[in-house]
Amino acid sequence: TMVLCFPSSLTAPLKMFILVLGLLVGSLMPLGGAASSPDTGTGHGGSHGNKDPGYAKNGNGTTYSKKPFPVLSFDYEHVRLPFEISLWVLLASLMKLGFHLIPRVSSIVPESCLLIVVGLLVGGLIKLVGEDPPVLESKIFFFYLLPPIILDAGYFMPIRQFTENLGTILMFAVVGTLWNSFFVGGLLYGVCQLEGHKLAYVDLLSCLLFGSIISAVDPVAVLAVFEEIHINELLHILVFGESLLNDAVTVVLYHLFEEYSSVGLITVTDVFLGIVCFLVVSLGGIVVGAIYGILAAFTSRFTSHTRVIEPLFVFVYSYMAYLSAEVFHLSGIMALIACGAVMRPYVEANISHKSHTTIKYFLKMWSSVSDTLIFIFLGVSTVAGPHQWNWTFVVATLIFCLVARVLGVVGLTFVINKFRIVKLTSKDQFIIAYGGLRGAIAFSLVYLLNPEHFPMRNMFLTAIITVIFFTVFVQGMTIRPLVDLLAVKKKQETKRSINEEIHTQFLDHLLTGIEDICGHYGHHHWKDKLNRFNKKYVKKCLIAGERSKEPQLIAFYHKMEMKQAIELVESGGGSKLPSALPSTVSMQ
Amino acid sequence: TMVLCFPSSLTAPLKMFILVLGLLVGSLMPLGGAASSPDTGTGHGGSHGNKDPGYAKNGNGTTYSKKPFPVLSFDYEHVRLPFEISLWVLLASLMKLGFHLIPRVSSIVPESCLLIVVGLLVGGLIKLVGEDPPVLESKIFFFYLLPPIILDAGYFMPIRQFTENLGTILMFAVVGTLWNSFFVGGLLYGVCQLEGHKLAYVDLLSCLLFGSIISAVDPVAVLAVFEEIHINELLHILVFGESLLNDAVTVVLYHLFEEYSSVGLITVTDVFLGIVCFLVVSLGGIVVGAIYGILAAFTSRFTSHTRVIEPLFVFVYSYMAYLSAEVFHLSGIMALIACGAVMRPYVEANISHKSHTTIKYFLKMWSSVSDTLIFIFLGVSTVAGPHQWNWTFVVATLIFCLVARVLGVVGLTFVINKFRIVKLTSKDQFIIAYGGLRGAIAFSLVYLLNPEHFPMRNMFLTAIITVIFFTVFVQGMTIRPLVDLLAVKKKQETKRSINEEIHTQFLDHLLTGIEDICGHYGHHHWKDKLNRFNKKYVKKCLIAGERSKEPQLIAFYHKMEMKQAIELVESGGGSKLPSALPSTVSMQ
Repeated sequence: TMVLCFPSSLTAPLKMFILVLGLLVGSLMPLGGAASSPDTGTGHGGSHGNKDPGYAKNGNGTTYSKKPFPVLSFDYEHVRLPFEISLWVLLASLMKLGFHLIPRVSSIVPESCLLIVVGLLVGGLIKLVGEDPPVLESKIFFFYLLPPIILDAGYFMPIRQFTENLGTILMFAVVGTLWNSFFVGGLLYGVCQLEGHKLAYVDLLSCLLFGSIISAVDPVAVLAVFEEIHINELLHILVFGESLLNDAVTVVLYHLFEEYSSVGLITVTDVFLGIVCFLVVSLGGIVVGAIYGILAAFTSRFTSHTRVIEPLFVFVYSYMAYLSAEVFHLSGIMALIACGAVMRPYVEANISHKSHTTIKYFLKMWSSVSDTLIFIFLGVSTVAGPHQWNWTFVVATLIFCLVARVLGVVGLTFVINKFRIVKLTSKDQFIIAYGGLRGAIAFSLVYLLNPEHFPMRNMFLTAIITVIFFTVFVQGMTIRPLVDLLAVKKKQETKRSINEEIHTQFLDHLLTGIEDICGHYGHHHWKDKLNRFNKKYVKKCLIAGERSKEPQLIAFYHKMEMKQAIELVESGGGSKLPSALPSTVSMQ
Repeated sequence: TMVLCFPSSLTAPLKMFILVLGLLVGSLMPLGGAASSPDTGTGHGGSHGNKDPGYAKNGNGTTYSKKPFPVLSFDYEHVRLPFEISLWVLLASLMKLGFHLIPRVSSIVPESCLLIVVGLLVGGLIKLVGEDPPVLESKIFFFYLLPPIILDAGYFMPIRQFTENLGTILMFAVVGTLWNSFFVGGLLYGVCQLEGHKLAYVDLLSCLLFGSIISAVDPVAVLAVFEEIHINELLHILVFGESLLNDAVTVVLYHLFEEYSSVGLITVTDVFLGIVCFLVVSLGGIVVGAIYGILAAFTSRFTSHTRVIEPLFVFVYSYMAYLSAEVFHLSGIMALIACGAVMRPYVEANISHKSHTTIKYFLKMWSSVSDTLIFIFLGVSTVAGPHQWNWTFVVATLIFCLVARVLGVVGLTFVINKFRIVKLTSKDQFIIAYGGLRGAIAFSLVYLLNPEHFPMRNMFLTAIITVIFFTVFVQGMTIRPLVDLLAVKKKQETKRSINEEIHTQFLDHLLTGIEDICGHYGHHHWKDKLNRFNKKYVKKCLIAGERSKEPQLIAFYHKMEMKQAIELVESGGGSKLPSALPSTVSMQ
């Protein structure tokens, strides 16, 4: 049950950092008095369970010498865990603060690169002092650092853009990741066999496992870089959406290859079960997330008397959605995204404006700190090792990764463009391929591998760190100049006007009407059905009192507009009125 | 290093609560599928360190039978800690929510009472199921539940009222607590000796230790009750201030009596060292808090480019102040209060409006949840025991506590009123005495005692729980009707107008001027000196850019007004101009 216990080597960075902090703020830390004060105190939080043995001896012993009452005592051990966590968080935040104070650096080098460099320096210093640098523990990463970032992304996800491009995103996330995994894994196996004696022990399934880990685009790395370059919404959602939705593929491939790597055999049944498992992991994750999302929305209906704890429900329900999905090895990331997306419209209608601000800014703060800690620890972990450098393997991995990504994006876009109305240009394809950054999730997954079953784990770790560093440093640093050079469309900072808003909605209704008239049940038809269902039943359950009816007035105007539009269509071209039409118009 | 590990008996309430939650939300919890899914999965966060032994056997063993790939696996253990913490927080919040939905209950019974009752019920249910209910661990209480409540109180402390009544507050907190401790402890020792065989083993120092623990008014309990009855600011700050500042006295008495209870002897040197220790603990706590407060203020000067992490610095610096004070057994509560009070004016001038809202509402949310958890766990812990009920001891404790409180308040007020301009009426005295609620700090301190050295610990625990329940239930529930009955002045909800604000400041300046003219260096003189120092030096260091000069304009108008006032005084009565005057007027 030693779950949240940091490795004991944390004391080393503590000492290190106290020195750094000392230089930073003038050594005002009260720990300076540590050496001069006697370490004799017990009590007020510390004496329970591990009673000072010297004290116990005094009680029973025969040779008793009375000590004077300790005016100032010192007991670091009993505050150690919270103190060191706070210290890491504080120092990481101070680093982040520092970068933005240096005039031009933050506009050229992405923050993630700077933080990794800081991590490398800190790790190096710790090693110089002679201690073992701490490693980014997979458990801490998956349970405490990743969820805030994903929740922040999921809660503020632009739903419309996401659903409109869902096909493209899924294509990249599922087919693309599969392609990458098997291409990289298969070719690496070939290289290992060709190389002979040194790498011959690397079997096919281990290679495929490695391929599946290294193929997944990382949401943390993508967010860190893409939020700084302000790319247009379409490209942002395509790359970021891919990085979120490939989680299910990665989880399934990881479990499949890890489970059978020692057996060395995968049957057709296993492949079939793997496909079933993919559906279970992804849809199960979404269902778990949606359930918690609905619970959260339902809870927020009743918070009008206890405004002060409103934000808590958003955080706790989301976190429990993530953990519940993890219990069943479902996709926690998809659960979080689903939970955030489902609860948001209802929660926002129910909670107070102040609570909304608190949720928004607290989530931003939290994800920002998590992000900072992840990149710093990535640097520190790199120094910590254990490494096994093999030129052939590392170079082959890097080249195959890049080639697979380019081929995958180009090939898939060729297929996707046949179905898209707004085609992806070659510039878009380049940015999608180039923006496929790898990050800490891949590192943590390799770190989780048991060295007993995977003797090549350390080599994998070295290779994956190389790929992460290449993508974050080389691609991350050059993507901004390239975006400028290629004149890729940037994000427009302006909010949509009421006029645009109304016309977008109007167009939606119009297209639904046209679909109905044609008798074609497409995208707009089902969206409209869902909206009606939402308005008629769900909102009444999940939104409190008057607010559940608020948008009806606007909806009424839309209906009026739509009626006129349909009349226009009718009088112009439509001679026969399909039977579906009346229900469309009158049911609202 | 098993620091944050919850007791293993937490599974029992988990099962319990899943039932409760099941009834509450329609048993949508995904744990329902636990029994039907095979427990075979490894990986994605779980397989590190404790590899599934069955799996390892497959790798080495000779009799291998291929398992199908697990489509849905279940592994609760690896998410257990965060999941159960989230669950407790969620259920506590839902309870809180529930109370406010029941129409009239929340206006009659204080929330703290309801929460304790819920805790008792939950504890009883757990015991019925046959498991041990969890106890409010002292470490979790002091490190994770108490700090948010104190920080919330400290950061939003009404400084002016606090400093204006500092003398009275200190009198109640220091002299009052000492009086209570020795009165209760001494009389209890007498009762124990009179009672004979059953209680004769209770020595004097243990009684005094018990007296010192039970005498301290509890800030959590006071806040919970006083925030609901909306008493006037003076009484609120007197009782609440006392509950905060008596922490140093309690810490010192606790350590002193605990340290020497096994020796059975306290020399004059120890008493002297105890007094020194009191000064060290209280002033040391304030210094540690002030240092972190200044650091936080200084840091917030540079956050204009990284607005998103501004609230973090407030939380982390404050928490580190608390922990740093605890390292040296200084008063963590006073450190937190000092830290919050010192940083607030500068931080508020530096940070953005959104960050301020986030800090305010997040602190309120956090302290509210901590508060809820404390009272629920207090109820659960009561059921958990271990109890040793002794009628004489419990009744004597309760009566002595009440008598000591009344005598202490009346006696001290008699002295205090000689120095106060606004005298404390007998109504005020009654509310101060009646509002002296005891709470979870006392419980945790007794819980910390080592049963080996204090064989009467369980009896102490029972007595302290009785006193807590009596004060929270009887006094907490009747104080509101009594306040109405006695027509005690309530809090005015209106914010002070600009006019009042300006005239208050003007009067301050005027009084300072008069003090200067008289050559009397009183309260106003030093306050003015401090303000000048703050304006001239501190603000320039701690507040960024233009904002450090903002209040100067207002200060200028005040100076003008003051000059006129002084001229008025001069022309009216003052014939001789003291030499101090020119510096007062021109130095601003």
